[in-house]
Amino acid sequence: MSRKRIHLALHPYGVGGPGQHGLWKDPRVAKNASIDINYYIRQAQAAEHALFDALFIVDSQFINATYPSHYLNRLEPLTLLSAVATHTRHLGLVGTASSTYNSPFNLARRFASLDHISGGRAGWNVVTSFDTGTSKNYGLDEHLDYATRYGRALEFVQVAQGLWDSYEDDAFPADVERNVFLDPLKLHDLDHVGEHFKVAGPLNLSRSPQGQPVIFQAGVSEEGRDLAARVAEGIYAPGGPLQQAQEYYADIKRRTAAHGRNPDHIKIFIHGGPVVAATDEAARLREREIFEEDNDFDRHLALLGRSFGAYDFSVHDLDAPFPDVAHLAEKGGRTGAAKIIERARTENLTWRQVAQSLAEFRRSPFVGAPETVADRIEEWFDAGTFDGINLAFRTEEELELFVDGVVPILQKRDLFRTEYEADTLRGNLGLPVPANRHTAGATGA
Amino acid sequence: MSRKRIHLALHPYGVGGPGQHGLWKDPRVAKNASIDINYYIRQAQAAEHALFDALFIVDSQFINATYPSHYLNRLEPLTLLSAVATHTRHLGLVGTASSTYNSPFNLARRFASLDHISGGRAGWNVVTSFDTGTSKNYGLDEHLDYATRYGRALEFVQVAQGLWDSYEDDAFPADVERNVFLDPLKLHDLDHVGEHFKVAGPLNLSRSPQGQPVIFQAGVSEEGRDLAARVAEGIYAPGGPLQQAQEYYADIKRRTAAHGRNPDHIKIFIHGGPVVAATDEAARLREREIFEEDNDFDRHLALLGRSFGAYDFSVHDLDAPFPDVAHLAEKGGRTGAAKIIERARTENLTWRQVAQSLAEFRRSPFVGAPETVADRIEEWFDAGTFDGINLAFRTEEELELFVDGVVPILQKRDLFRTEYEADTLRGNLGLPVPANRHTAGATGA
Repeated sequence: MSRKRIHLALHPYGVGGPGQHGLWKDPRVAKNASIDINYYIRQAQAAEHALFDALFIVDSQFINATYPSHYLNRLEPLTLLSAVATHTRHLGLVGTASSTYNSPFNLARRFASLDHISGGRAGWNVVTSFDTGTSKNYGLDEHLDYATRYGRALEFVQVAQGLWDSYEDDAFPADVERNVFLDPLKLHDLDHVGEHFKVAGPLNLSRSPQGQPVIFQAGVSEEGRDLAARVAEGIYAPGGPLQQAQEYYADIKRRTAAHGRNPDHIKIFIHGGPVVAATDEAARLREREIFEEDNDFDRHLALLGRSFGAYDFSVHDLDAPFPDVAHLAEKGGRTGAAKIIERARTENLTWRQVAQSLAEFRRSPFVGAPETVADRIEEWFDAGTFDGINLAFRTEEELELFVDGVVPILQKRDLFRTEYEADTLRGNLGLPVPANRHTAGATGA
Repeated sequence: MSRKRIHLALHPYGVGGPGQHGLWKDPRVAKNASIDINYYIRQAQAAEHALFDALFIVDSQFINATYPSHYLNRLEPLTLLSAVATHTRHLGLVGTASSTYNSPFNLARRFASLDHISGGRAGWNVVTSFDTGTSKNYGLDEHLDYATRYGRALEFVQVAQGLWDSYEDDAFPADVERNVFLDPLKLHDLDHVGEHFKVAGPLNLSRSPQGQPVIFQAGVSEEGRDLAARVAEGIYAPGGPLQQAQEYYADIKRRTAAHGRNPDHIKIFIHGGPVVAATDEAARLREREIFEEDNDFDRHLALLGRSFGAYDFSVHDLDAPFPDVAHLAEKGGRTGAAKIIERARTENLTWRQVAQSLAEFRRSPFVGAPETVADRIEEWFDAGTFDGINLAFRTEEELELFVDGVVPILQKRDLFRTEYEADTLRGNLGLPVPANRHTAGATGA
């Protein structure tokens, strides 16, 4: 391999995620796409055909009627990915699950099961849950605060990784002559006792060909970045303008090294919704059209409200300065309610301007004819903004335009693979297989 | 339909469940069957080809090295069934999940997701978790007591059913002209506040073609039977000698009616591991051979220990009278530790005899040439012992013998379907689709 290559993941949004609230009206989008397993299988097979690294399924658990169409009614990630697994052979299968609202034993087992079903292609995107309303679906009156959620997340991942090592790789000789199915010395309890969890183990599931599922994370806040640097092997990064993406990339790699880890063993994916057309002009027009189509101010406000516990901003005068809502931000989520407030104050923005700017933030930097989009991707890659892109498309046709138009150019420039390196997600991402902690001579990843 | 028909489910045991501890040595059994999704897909497709009602996946979460081979290393039921779903079209997909060690919102969502993925074929076998050691995987020092586990199970099912009704059936008009994707009046919070759970809802998933997943249960104790009579639509029954099966069947139907429910809307499945051969004599020989092969006393003791919190009976004199272990039985599980003790006392049994009798209990009543097995099944069915049989086979070949030999005879006698009645599990089991509780004019199931 003459140069470092780009990783690509596909992020399907069914009938429409944030900033795509009108997508369900597109005649090319099936009205039930978000709950139709065949839609996901088609997306996965298209991604695998294009040699993408992974299918990335995000998640949330709190809704109200103002939420994006795809959020209202969608399949649960692990059941979805298990169904997709047997229809693909190389594609990584990354699913979001909350460390705040699950038990480590249950969740570790489900990801290990997906890892077996897929032959070593499972990835877990660890989230601490963003919507404060989620807590009320789990018996809590209040969302757990930031520090508790991130402390819990770190311990949760460590417990899961401990459970995944319950069996050493050669625990099952299944030797008929010696009448030994299991070598009991290679089955290990965990006996974890920590601040948030007590888990005895062992897990009733052996390791897959990739050793352990790959840990993804989506840290933006201080706590999130630190968690990522400690345990993440992939990051679902916020993206944004080039300079911001560069700073984030450098910061995560620096923090990872500071924790004694190889910074190459954490792959940073930015979110990208490329708009490809025959000419640059046509692509620009289409991008503006999409933006205007979705430029529904009520929806922007509802999304802004998500960062403040589904706060309803619409009852206020939108052209007054952004209000003092710091008390709502204390338990805030991923996109950083505190940062929104800070920026609004610094730049003296009205509420309308804040909501509008969030929509602008989601506009893609990758717009143009195939050659142009490939140029922009290469430029961003070389500028140290990402290791991979998490691609979202509005329709199956737009995915096809990217795959047929842009991917071959990236391949010609030796920026993207021409065949899979491995059958496992770790293998394709260039991540090491963690040695089992109980195996003699194990040194860790 | 001239007469009532039998339902059949398939219960795959991979490398060997209870009483099959030597099965992994059979050259026809793949050493990794229990973790190989293709084994389950083949089993499911064979069951569907034979027009069976369902694939039934049981589960447990606590192991030690003495447990049956299949328990040591097996796939998690919901990921497994999701993978199987897209390779089948009519077969019901019933998975075991614990109401003691899950949260209702998470679990309701996963079963609803499987229900969508399968187009209305999901069933949930509600268990309260039998192995007392499971508690230590979930941060509890002590297993919850019987009353608490069953109280929690009832409320858990009611919460799940409430969440499954979050959306009315016509909640998504997806009307482009009127610009209405969701009709917000048809999305309902649950706002459940009970003894064990507080769950606000709504669930972010709509109803499937069968309205709600089918509820299975496996109640043997007083609390278990009562729970079944209140909420179960299918039962995984203990079986045993004919008279015992008759009493159980009549008791469950009576209790169901006493709760104001139609006793026909609870389908009782007994466990059966038929042994079919060309002649009765050959089948009897084979059955004895299997029994002797698996007649490993240490394994019987380990299984007996399961009912007493993985108690190690092997340290005692096995030919002394059964000891006073009532204190270990207080939190006991499904097969009724208390009943074992009572019987041991009444019949003045030694420990060895108790362990041996548990093994005898698992011997199948359905042994013989195909015609004989069909006769026995008809006889048991007409005697009011079951609505369906949960069939377990040692090998894929033995499943084939049953399907090719016995099923056609049952069909000739009009005891088993010759084509599927429906594409949903409810449809094939003859269970009603529960009306959504929020829909005007709804009367309930």
